[in-house]
Amino acid sequence: MATGSFDFAPLVPAGLPPAAARWTGLAKYSFVGGNNDPDQVPVDGLIDAVNAVLKREGRTLATYGLASGPQGYRPLREFLVGKLKRDAAINCTADDILIVSGSLQALDLINHTLLARGDTVIIEQDSYQGALNRLTRLGVNMVGIPLDGDGMRMDALAAALEELKRKNIQPKYVYTIPTVQNPTGTIMPEERRFELLKLSQQYGVPIFEDDCYADLIWDGERPPAIYAMATAGGVIHIGSFSKSIAPALRVGFIVAPWDVMSRMLALKTDAGSGALEQMVLAEYCAPHFATHVPKLTKGLRAKLDTLMEALNEQFGTAAEFEDPKGGIFLWVKLPDNVDTLKLYQSALAAGVAINPGPEWSTDKAYGKSRMRLCFASPSHEQIKEGVAKLAEVCRTEFGVPARIANVEKHVRA
Amino acid sequence: MATGSFDFAPLVPAGLPPAAARWTGLAKYSFVGGNNDPDQVPVDGLIDAVNAVLKREGRTLATYGLASGPQGYRPLREFLVGKLKRDAAINCTADDILIVSGSLQALDLINHTLLARGDTVIIEQDSYQGALNRLTRLGVNMVGIPLDGDGMRMDALAAALEELKRKNIQPKYVYTIPTVQNPTGTIMPEERRFELLKLSQQYGVPIFEDDCYADLIWDGERPPAIYAMATAGGVIHIGSFSKSIAPALRVGFIVAPWDVMSRMLALKTDAGSGALEQMVLAEYCAPHFATHVPKLTKGLRAKLDTLMEALNEQFGTAAEFEDPKGGIFLWVKLPDNVDTLKLYQSALAAGVAINPGPEWSTDKAYGKSRMRLCFASPSHEQIKEGVAKLAEVCRTEFGVPARIANVEKHVRA
Repeated sequence: MATGSFDFAPLVPAGLPPAAARWTGLAKYSFVGGNNDPDQVPVDGLIDAVNAVLKREGRTLATYGLASGPQGYRPLREFLVGKLKRDAAINCTADDILIVSGSLQALDLINHTLLARGDTVIIEQDSYQGALNRLTRLGVNMVGIPLDGDGMRMDALAAALEELKRKNIQPKYVYTIPTVQNPTGTIMPEERRFELLKLSQQYGVPIFEDDCYADLIWDGERPPAIYAMATAGGVIHIGSFSKSIAPALRVGFIVAPWDVMSRMLALKTDAGSGALEQMVLAEYCAPHFATHVPKLTKGLRAKLDTLMEALNEQFGTAAEFEDPKGGIFLWVKLPDNVDTLKLYQSALAAGVAINPGPEWSTDKAYGKSRMRLCFASPSHEQIKEGVAKLAEVCRTEFGVPARIANVEKHVRA
Repeated sequence: MATGSFDFAPLVPAGLPPAAARWTGLAKYSFVGGNNDPDQVPVDGLIDAVNAVLKREGRTLATYGLASGPQGYRPLREFLVGKLKRDAAINCTADDILIVSGSLQALDLINHTLLARGDTVIIEQDSYQGALNRLTRLGVNMVGIPLDGDGMRMDALAAALEELKRKNIQPKYVYTIPTVQNPTGTIMPEERRFELLKLSQQYGVPIFEDDCYADLIWDGERPPAIYAMATAGGVIHIGSFSKSIAPALRVGFIVAPWDVMSRMLALKTDAGSGALEQMVLAEYCAPHFATHVPKLTKGLRAKLDTLMEALNEQFGTAAEFEDPKGGIFLWVKLPDNVDTLKLYQSALAAGVAINPGPEWSTDKAYGKSRMRLCFASPSHEQIKEGVAKLAEVCRTEFGVPARIANVEKHVRA
């Protein structure tokens, strides 16, 4: 039996991330991770789909890539062609789409295609932790652009582009989550997308459009994708089934012109993404996606309402937030004296998991008293109890909210 | 609509692999890729499994990692604990196992945990193309150790280790496919595994044991895994369901001590491998794996017989090979004047895909007149026709075999 007496440590190269700690389970009240509502997984529909597709095509599992080639299962790409046309005004063909193992693989492929250590990218100041961490690991400089209620601010972007040009620095891309921004929940209006495209053209900087949350909009009004509006190209678009169907399936996609696609394909050396999951999604989504998503978003909106009510009740004015336009997360500002990295530790000890703001922002000081709360996975009951617990921990640790419950509202100093 | 007029080329960093060509479909007679026999995919069993597991646990797809943590779906790891004990004499727990997206991800995680550019590894001279390509891409030096009928030669390994020590070079690992070696199809006997472990200990070089094909042995006599024999640790073991169930599922696994496991986990930033495939495999394999595999190998052995007969018939003595002990591939030596990289091109034009030897060897001259033929995927009929076509192309291009069919056997000059 292999014991651990052989010492691997001297063989490990410099620069690796710290070793992982042993997993100790999910928190009782988990407001982290892009998990979804277990009650909303379309289990029966997926069962019907998997039966149908395996009966018809199960034998093709014997072949890497299901004989659909390296870009992924063709019927899934064909579903996406129709879906992207309908939902995001994107005109593309199945050959413009690459199926990947979740949008995280999309980030990796795009980063490895365009970035080298020391490069610079432009990114929304508050952004997806998975994107920020990857760029940090790659040794890439991030220029953070502040957001407002309409997403990335174009005046700040224009200034940053000009400043970089003055310094002779060519940014490799502008990364944006324009539709249900993570973590702020904003949607960039069409006019601002035009402005963004104009700046992209003017400075020769491509746009990396991450539309992973774009299916989950309360009023269903989704602007055209930036990819769709880009008459001269220069946009790479990614999306995912994690938010609309189920995150554990690990299926995402990239829409990109062939000169980028062909380079990403050369880097996708995994012999294809999981075929069964692609088959099931294609079979399920073609007839059901358009009706499933509105049901899902309705349920998510109800959970968001519960979360916002609980925050108002437990934190009063000590918790500030905008009502997001969709998605699965709320970006919350606590009083300035709260350090959410510390709050994270104490809350976790009390069974409540939160995302501390500094991990979701290029501006650590700005993020310090902010946190991201994900609301799709916990039940309404868990949301209420978890927020009450969090308020209790926050009060013990930082003196705010001054009192639990909204009997006496705390006025921020 | 996004056209391609934006030029990405100036943004692409140096050192990327060449862009991929557009996929043009599978060859009519395909003897490449680790594809399996479509008739042997246990479709009905997989359908029953997926129904059962989705009915019972489908809701957990809403949570990344199915609430099993980052090492993968716990019931699949528990199945593996029993399977590895029974088949490979490995004593381990579910905590020693990491489920990955195919063994290629295992290669990536292990390489990134242990290797830096300029490092040196020891590898069987003829080896898996996916391993060789990765090491080349990483800028790692490979020392190839020749093989004989019992796998890697220990005299040559001892000499190489001594030579490296003399040069003050610490090899990072010895990569071996001891059980159904790829491409030679040999099995390293237990005595030689002891010798290998002794050398590993003596020189402080860990062993990377790739047992991906080890389920497919004609006589079912599988020696204990090197991992199982390593009383002092120092072995990382990987395996896969690609060969035993279906390659398109993309599920493999790593067995490793925690000091390596914890570092690999830190590098596995994909939010988990595909959950549905892990669920289906766990549900199917627990009751059926042990009976499925002997049926599968029986069918594969019959295809190998067809391939060897066809080669004898069409190539006569111009094709030399050993009867492999298991697996899905045959390593074939053609006459010295045949360049299989050229043969590959002409054969492909004629609808026959082969693996040219130089892509499967650290010694390009040794590999020049060799080729790998995979026999699991084509039908018996396709094998016969494909080998006849290949012989025809080879004769036209290189003058051997002198005549088609075994009426007149060619004597190699």
